[in-house]
Amino acid sequence: MKASQFFISTQKEAPADADIISQKLMLRAGMIKKLAAGIYNYMPMGLRSIRKVEAIIREEMNAAGATELLMPVIQPAELWQESGRWDKYGPELMRIKDRHDRDFIVQPTSEEVITDIARQELRSYRQLPQNWYHIQTKFRDERRPRFGVMRGREFTMKDAYSFDRNTEGALKTYDAMFAAYLRIFGRLGLQFRAVAADTGSIGGDRSHEFQVIADAGEDLLVYNPETDYAANIELAEALPLSAERAAPAEELTLTLTPGTGRCSELADYLKLPLSRTIKSLIFATEAEGKLTGIWLLMLRGDHELNEIKAGKLPGFGDGFRMATEAEIIDHFGCKPGFLGPIKTVKPVHVIADRTVANMSDFVVGANQEDYHYTGVNWGRDLPEPELVADLRNIVAGDPAPDGKGVVAIQRGIEVGHVFYLGTKYSKALDATFLDEDGKPKHFEMGCYGIGVTRLLGAAIEQNHDAKGIVWPTAMAPFEVVVCPIGADRSEAVREAAFRLHDELAAAGIDVIIDDRGERPGVMFADWELIGVPYRVTLGDRGLKEGMVEFQHRRDEAATKVALAGIAATVIGRVRADLAA
Amino acid sequence: MKASQFFISTQKEAPADADIISQKLMLRAGMIKKLAAGIYNYMPMGLRSIRKVEAIIREEMNAAGATELLMPVIQPAELWQESGRWDKYGPELMRIKDRHDRDFIVQPTSEEVITDIARQELRSYRQLPQNWYHIQTKFRDERRPRFGVMRGREFTMKDAYSFDRNTEGALKTYDAMFAAYLRIFGRLGLQFRAVAADTGSIGGDRSHEFQVIADAGEDLLVYNPETDYAANIELAEALPLSAERAAPAEELTLTLTPGTGRCSELADYLKLPLSRTIKSLIFATEAEGKLTGIWLLMLRGDHELNEIKAGKLPGFGDGFRMATEAEIIDHFGCKPGFLGPIKTVKPVHVIADRTVANMSDFVVGANQEDYHYTGVNWGRDLPEPELVADLRNIVAGDPAPDGKGVVAIQRGIEVGHVFYLGTKYSKALDATFLDEDGKPKHFEMGCYGIGVTRLLGAAIEQNHDAKGIVWPTAMAPFEVVVCPIGADRSEAVREAAFRLHDELAAAGIDVIIDDRGERPGVMFADWELIGVPYRVTLGDRGLKEGMVEFQHRRDEAATKVALAGIAATVIGRVRADLAA
Repeated sequence: MKASQFFISTQKEAPADADIISQKLMLRAGMIKKLAAGIYNYMPMGLRSIRKVEAIIREEMNAAGATELLMPVIQPAELWQESGRWDKYGPELMRIKDRHDRDFIVQPTSEEVITDIARQELRSYRQLPQNWYHIQTKFRDERRPRFGVMRGREFTMKDAYSFDRNTEGALKTYDAMFAAYLRIFGRLGLQFRAVAADTGSIGGDRSHEFQVIADAGEDLLVYNPETDYAANIELAEALPLSAERAAPAEELTLTLTPGTGRCSELADYLKLPLSRTIKSLIFATEAEGKLTGIWLLMLRGDHELNEIKAGKLPGFGDGFRMATEAEIIDHFGCKPGFLGPIKTVKPVHVIADRTVANMSDFVVGANQEDYHYTGVNWGRDLPEPELVADLRNIVAGDPAPDGKGVVAIQRGIEVGHVFYLGTKYSKALDATFLDEDGKPKHFEMGCYGIGVTRLLGAAIEQNHDAKGIVWPTAMAPFEVVVCPIGADRSEAVREAAFRLHDELAAAGIDVIIDDRGERPGVMFADWELIGVPYRVTLGDRGLKEGMVEFQHRRDEAATKVALAGIAATVIGRVRADLAA
Repeated sequence: MKASQFFISTQKEAPADADIISQKLMLRAGMIKKLAAGIYNYMPMGLRSIRKVEAIIREEMNAAGATELLMPVIQPAELWQESGRWDKYGPELMRIKDRHDRDFIVQPTSEEVITDIARQELRSYRQLPQNWYHIQTKFRDERRPRFGVMRGREFTMKDAYSFDRNTEGALKTYDAMFAAYLRIFGRLGLQFRAVAADTGSIGGDRSHEFQVIADAGEDLLVYNPETDYAANIELAEALPLSAERAAPAEELTLTLTPGTGRCSELADYLKLPLSRTIKSLIFATEAEGKLTGIWLLMLRGDHELNEIKAGKLPGFGDGFRMATEAEIIDHFGCKPGFLGPIKTVKPVHVIADRTVANMSDFVVGANQEDYHYTGVNWGRDLPEPELVADLRNIVAGDPAPDGKGVVAIQRGIEVGHVFYLGTKYSKALDATFLDEDGKPKHFEMGCYGIGVTRLLGAAIEQNHDAKGIVWPTAMAPFEVVVCPIGADRSEAVREAAFRLHDELAAAGIDVIIDDRGERPGVMFADWELIGVPYRVTLGDRGLKEGMVEFQHRRDEAATKVALAGIAATVIGRVRADLAA
């Protein structure tokens, strides 16, 4: 490819509204161009990377026995009404009416349509398993689209859906997809981690996220550096920090603690470690709009509530929220800031985090403004908690849930998700097949997504420096750039550069030659911003000695290499990268 | 590819609502599956053909210097308001509101967005020309979607847009696209014709449609079998059928012609050829909702009005329609059926078709029920027409517009359109670049579309028989199917079949082996329906003699070929087809 025949458009500055490094670099490198909030044009440079990602996904999906099809962007509401998601989905679901006033949606995902296909097409167990995927435009009307392609409204997703006879088969398919995902993200050249994830409202017991490791990630990944254990913090089990309760050593004391509404203020005031204080969080549960209970959740002062875990508490499944100030005053006789489990005005359900349940001589609010109880002990000063549960986010250094050593935590960007669905959708749409015994059974399903466009942003978050993007070879818009210096003045340079370009192209290397006639500084800055992994620079002086300059995007400086061997070197390096 | 690992789903009968052969065959062959009116799932078999079409389009577009990008499906209304098409487009434009009540559309085409990109990105003449394309999902909310993928609502289109400094450059780009289209449709293996087409409201003077020849086509293509001339009937010039008027031979006579409201009835009644009668068509023109004139258009009784040509008459450009009965009675004093240019109640504008203007002794309505004038002659019995114009559709056998011989007519399905746009959109969106003289100029644009999904339907309309589809090799979901007979009983068959499959696959042939274990009759019927071009059948008896059966989808019967040479034969045939 000649740069003069391609469209290259770099910018010195990113627009002011770009809010994350990958977005800034994609805009500056001319990979994307904003059309509307969360809606981007993929410019020629960006599209090349997308196509490479798609090709690798296709190869691995096909190799894993999945079959590609294509479901429409615009889908009829009827199927979404049948599954119940027409009502359950919020305003992220983009709804449209056609000219005949019929309801449609712009698909954010395709469980309904694929299940509709399956219930028509798959009649016998002999046709199973099937695993169908498509790579298609999705739309989610995010309230606040941001982070460029990482949380856009229109995006490209690969979504696969599997249909099996039974749970055993479904889990086998799940494992095959898990393995395919490991290969996909490995081939893309990304540092990533597969973590156990919450199954949310879908149920089932198996779900993994594939997370690209990056400081800008919104997810916290908990892992055991010594074992295979890895989970999203939403799911990672927090063990109690002491095995059992120590005997009480202090007396219960009502203590004046003015202006200490927050645990950190309280610990400072009492000159106690934060880990001796208790946070009392008050929640209300509801079912069908009616209040079903007021709950006091007790966490150690330095710990944070995990809302996913809270949602799984008995009674919380139908809906929960922070209690209102009125509900709090009604039950505790006190405003928030000094609440606690002792002497409430009305009875409340007390749930202690596992760590809290094993504490002694702790400090809780006294339900009187500016007062706390110190020296509090279970059984003696207040009843044992109604329930002991895992309520908190695990933190780095906590004992590992798998029993060996302690956990570490890093940030990640979710780029893939595999999900065992069970019969959620097949039951909702009554999608059955005739099993060997002649009886209709609901399909056991799984779904498997990869955020194609998001992957570009995630890869850049992980791979960039002050000069710009540093693409993994497999995702780069071009693998190699050939930069002739002064080609307008030197036929030797021109000729050698084009010969090298042609030789690399003939070997299947995705190479571009910068024949725009720009100055070396401009050329280098452009390609460093764009992030092409390999650069070969040819100048008159070097060529006289038979030498060219070779530089990987991560190298500090260029290396002199003989012109005679440069093609073989480049081909070898690129192929090694792609085989990795 | 093993059939057992692919998804094959054929049906004996097409659904009752399928209204055209290509739609029936695509549904029966399991290439598409209806999701809603005009919205189809592309099943694995269909998607393979789409991807092949897309790949050829990409190769030729890139070779012609175009660059691929990707514009969004959902586009903000603002740009469409800026171009004026937000108001001009009817209900085919699918409009949506997002959660913030902002207007968007589901794109039917992308002139606005690409022009918006160009006005931001292309600042200097040095960046020109540019030709950008994408292959993207489109939506047009057709009132009555029909003919399967030929007139669907959601479809895939390749649309390219070019930006040039001046008309000369734009026409050069146009010619390059024209040439690329010839290559694309040629490589796809289709019989097609590039015809001059009407430029409609867009203006400019150059537009060609690429039409796949098929009886089911909605377009009529006029061509000169002896020359290069070819045009859509909408545009094809109809010359006068006699060079000059003969001298009058009859007297003007008011003749009783009861019940002859139609020219055919009149000709029968008077025992005259239809070509002696005149059709009087009454139109009203309007501008800004106000009547601007009543027009009598005179055509020969056996000719048909061409509405596109009528729309270009002076005064018709702002809008025209058939006159109402009230308007007709008001001007002619008579109901439709016996109208004519002689003795109207109020003056009307008389426009004669070129052929009519050269007629003598013709018959027109007398503006009295059941009466006509016979022996009518221009100048003597009525004034010369106010205007002589080309009003009619040319018919087969008419003199060719390019002056040599006569034209023939065939039906076609429009699958591509190249269009010189001029500055229509660049002016509407004020998209300019700085020219060499330092002054801003509007881009000279062109647009170039190919209906990717429609191409599948068109190809099938052209290539099918009683058994099913007959794919051109370049568009076939698979190029070759290997059918082992009794592979479950014979290891020799099994082994030879898989070896052949592997050998073909290794040579880059897109081959599938039917390892489903179906009976030969079922296998053959499936692959004939699906339309795979080449089939190799291996059976125990033939193999004992070292022979297999080879059959092209168009062959009446299979040929015996030595197993030893079959791979080379197949590879040679497929490669020859693809090189054609």
